[in-house]
Parts: sequence; C-alpha cells; structure tokens
Amino acid sequence: MPVTALIPFKPANPKTRLSCVLDLDERIQFARLMLADVIDAVKGAGCTPRIISTDEYTCPIAAVDVIPGGLNETLNALLAKTDEKILIIMTDVPLATVEAVKRMIKTRKKIAIAPGRGGGTNAIYISKGSTFRVDYYGASFLKHARIAKERGLSCEVVDSFSLSTDIDEKEDLVELLIHGHGRSREYLENLGFSLSIEKGRVGVTRPERSGSGLL
Amino acid sequence: MPVTALIPFKPANPKTRLSCVLDLDERIQFARLMLADVIDAVKGAGCTPRIISTDEYTCPIAAVDVIPGGLNETLNALLAKTDEKILIIMTDVPLATVEAVKRMIKTRKKIAIAPGRGGGTNAIYISKGSTFRVDYYGASFLKHARIAKERGLSCEVVDSFSLSTDIDEKEDLVELLIHGHGRSREYLENLGFSLSIEKGRVGVTRPERSGSGLL
Repeated sequence: MPVTALIPFKPANPKTRLSCVLDLDERIQFARLMLADVIDAVKGAGCTPRIISTDEYTCPIAAVDVIPGGLNETLNALLAKTDEKILIIMTDVPLATVEAVKRMIKTRKKIAIAPGRGGGTNAIYISKGSTFRVDYYGASFLKHARIAKERGLSCEVVDSFSLSTDIDEKEDLVELLIHGHGRSREYLENLGFSLSIEKGRVGVTRPERSGSGLL
Repeated sequence: MPVTALIPFKPANPKTRLSCVLDLDERIQFARLMLADVIDAVKGAGCTPRIISTDEYTCPIAAVDVIPGGLNETLNALLAKTDEKILIIMTDVPLATVEAVKRMIKTRKKIAIAPGRGGGTNAIYISKGSTFRVDYYGASFLKHARIAKERGLSCEVVDSFSLSTDIDEKEDLVELLIHGHGRSREYLENLGFSLSIEKGRVGVTRPERSGSGLL
C-alpha cells in the first residue's frame, strides 16, 4: 500500500512575507511551483500526493480535495478516519528531495518527524493515520514529539537540511537559488533573481521592476 | 586509518553576534562548550579531533595546534601536506550528531559537503587531503562544489539539518534549545534561557540580568 502524502495548500494570497520581492501574481505562481516541487519529490519516493486545499484549485499533477477550515482541524479529521500510512508535508519546502522523503517513509519507527527551523514540523510520517493527531503552529516539533510519546508511538527525527528549509522570507530564497533543483528555482531565475554577496553575507537581488510592478 | 577532524577555533572574543544576550565571559564559555559538543560528535563517529586554534588554548578533550593566520591559508597549508582522510568541521554546529558525521565520512564520493544556511560549508570531508583546497567565506558551498568539479573529484551533498545549523545569532539559540543534546544546550539552560512563543513565532528569553551583567 503506497503512502498517501497529504500536502496542505492555501492558494489565496500566499507567501505574504515575500511581498517585498514578488507581487501577488508572482507569489501565486511561485507557491504553485513550490507545491509542484514537493509533489515531484513525494511522487519520486513512491507516495501518492493528495493536495488539501482551503480553496478551489486545480493541479495538473495531483489530486486535490478542497476542504475549507483550519489546518489542524482538517488534518485531524482526515487522520481520524484512516489506518493508512500518511505523510504530511508542507508545501513550502521545495528543496525536498526524493531521498529525504524516502528516509521519512522508510523509518522503522511509528512516527518520523522532519523539523523545520524555528521549532516547526515540515514533514511528519504516521505509520497508521488514526493513531496520531497533529498540532501545528508554535513549537510544533516539540508538540508532535510529545504527542507521540504520550501515545506510546516510537518516533524518529529525520535529520534533513532540505526538509528543514521552508521558504517564507526573502533571505530564504538564497537557499532555493543555491540548493534548489526544480521548478520554483527556475521560476526565480527567470524573474531575474540572482545571488549577491555583500560583506561576506549571501543575499538575493532582483533587477529593478518598472511601472506597475509587473514584469 | 581514522579520519582526522580539523576544527578551526578562535578563542578570543567569540560569537560577537550573541553579545545582545551573552556577555564576554559567557560567550567565551559558550564557544568552548559548542566546540566540546562538536568534539563529542566527531569522536563518537570514530574521528580523531584536532583543534586548529588561532590563539593559545588548552582543551581537556582534544589536541590543539595553535596556528595564527587566516582560515583558508591555515587549512590549505595543512591539506597540502597530507594524504590522509580529513574532515573539516566548524566549531559552531553543536547540533552535530554522531550519525550525521558518520554520513559524511562514509561517503562513497571523494568529497562530501554539509551545507550551512546562507551558502556556507559547515563540514567538508576530503578523502585525500592534498587533492583539495578550501575557500571559505561568502557562498563557500558553491565554491567548494566548483573546486571539486574542476579537480575531477566526485562530490556528495550531505543533507543534514543538524550540520546545517550554525549558531551565530540570538534566533539560532531556538534550535539549540529545541534540538540540542549536549553541553552548550545545558549551559544555556543553566543561564536561564528558555523558549518563548509570541504570535506563533518561537524565540528565546533570558531572565533579566542585574548589576554588572554577571549572573
């Protein structure tokens, strides 16, 4: 039985913290391409992707369920009614590799967590959906580790830079331009983004936009 | 032949970007304990640690060579005269685990690089010292990948969150308090550091210091 990879997605006004370098249309497109990169990684690892979208969205490469509502409520309702193997992976980890996803789903433990920076949970594998519940936001890594412990579920922490790197802010684009391998990186390059180095620190620059902000 | 792990260390006025939360004596002690965590990890993986210190320093758990000079110049002089297996690992990656170091030194490639955030190189394994030269600062990850390519040396990128996380700024202490497992984490806890959550973001707080700034 292949692992179902749930990928929560919020198509409306995404990635607002990137507004300083991407306008709304670009953010929408960028979010879709990061999603596509994640889909490519989970498919490559043999998972069946299933996008859980808060709003209407049609994806050419994966099934979409539109479920309005909060992240935890939606995911916990889905988990409660399945005994399948479930991977939940965030949409903003476009560095995710097939190998990293395989490390998650091949764990010998009941639960595997790939931490995000700042205490987050960027991917979590649950060997039997109904045995677990998620609790995102804040230091969710600690909450998920505690929930696993309380429920007597063995838990592995998967040590992955690519899964730990969520792309939220301008500085995060550095990681995508250096380590990215997929569609979202290509998109940034097509928009003219490139690396810049000032006083030994690596940043990103984008050519001046003219007029309405549309290229 | 065990792998020699070179650990560059600068004992004087370390970690200045942590001055906002640690005074000089504390930064000195904290830097030493991060170094000790790295030493523990490389020893656990079977490497022989060798601290390369810019100034006099005595370490109770590893040999120290005092070599004043620039990072690249010092390391390249050492590499040039050895055909041994060399791991170079930064001193400010206290999350480093035995498993992550093992992944580095067990590579089947000639070179293995563990990227740091922001284009850095937090650890690099060189299967034969004299075949490689390092070029730290700026986007050193890209430079090291290019040097390997130019020299015809196969190169693996080791995907490790623990090795990618260098502790430079206050925000980085979040990672240490959440994922740390060694002496530097214990030190922070003994100083009273704890996690704080504001508006969904995880940070660190430290109780107010009185008087001279010494606890």
